[in-house]
Amino acid sequence: MIGRLNHVAIAVPDLEAATAVYRDTLGARVTPATEQPEHGVTVVFIELPNTKIELLEPLGEKSPIQAFLDRSPAGGIHHVCYEVDDILAARDQLKAQGARVLGDGEPKIGAHGKPVLFLHPKDMLGTLVELEQA
Amino acid sequence: MIGRLNHVAIAVPDLEAATAVYRDTLGARVTPATEQPEHGVTVVFIELPNTKIELLEPLGEKSPIQAFLDRSPAGGIHHVCYEVDDILAARDQLKAQGARVLGDGEPKIGAHGKPVLFLHPKDMLGTLVELEQA
Repeated sequence: MIGRLNHVAIAVPDLEAATAVYRDTLGARVTPATEQPEHGVTVVFIELPNTKIELLEPLGEKSPIQAFLDRSPAGGIHHVCYEVDDILAARDQLKAQGARVLGDGEPKIGAHGKPVLFLHPKDMLGTLVELEQA
Repeated sequence: MIGRLNHVAIAVPDLEAATAVYRDTLGARVTPATEQPEHGVTVVFIELPNTKIELLEPLGEKSPIQAFLDRSPAGGIHHVCYEVDDILAARDQLKAQGARVLGDGEPKIGAHGKPVLFLHPKDMLGTLVELEQA
């Protein structure tokens, strides 16, 4: 069912400093920071030859990554995102196997403008997993 | 400097159960489990179209991932691995910029038979970063 690794997301407390680590220290190609108020994050993409790293900084008072940073103030890997061909079929198959879909179970439009779902870390080896329609 | 994302490594307490999550629930292609006593882990690779996920279970008494699992018993993302063309040049450039290389600073032969180094998570956004010679 799962296809490509679309991205690895890293939550960071200071996006400018984090971008400098990837751009200057690791010599990677980075995009300009983009505010995504509807997702409560400001995002920089690290463009690797085969996938992307997303750096996420909280935006606004109810950012979904603030609780993560409260537990891990220095930042850390927040989630991985796998592509699926058909997100509704994937969801139904996962639910039939007992995996929990976060929220109301309906796909939302994610940071790349495509439908996404999140799976409960307790069902996914302690890892928050995002599924994105390819 | 950094190139492809070679893999994302997930530490797990029960490799058989973890493999079943990726093989059966997520429908991915998995390799047979391989013991790597010299690295203190048993490994299963999840083969995605563009990269790999490594599932790591502790092997032996001094496994380098045991402390991680003591802190996160359900498992979680342990490190990310980026490819570099020249690991000695990468190391020297990183050290010149103040990034700390773990251990004695000399590359070791990693799980794929190629020279690897690990960078200190405190210099890498709270993320343990492995560099592997491409």
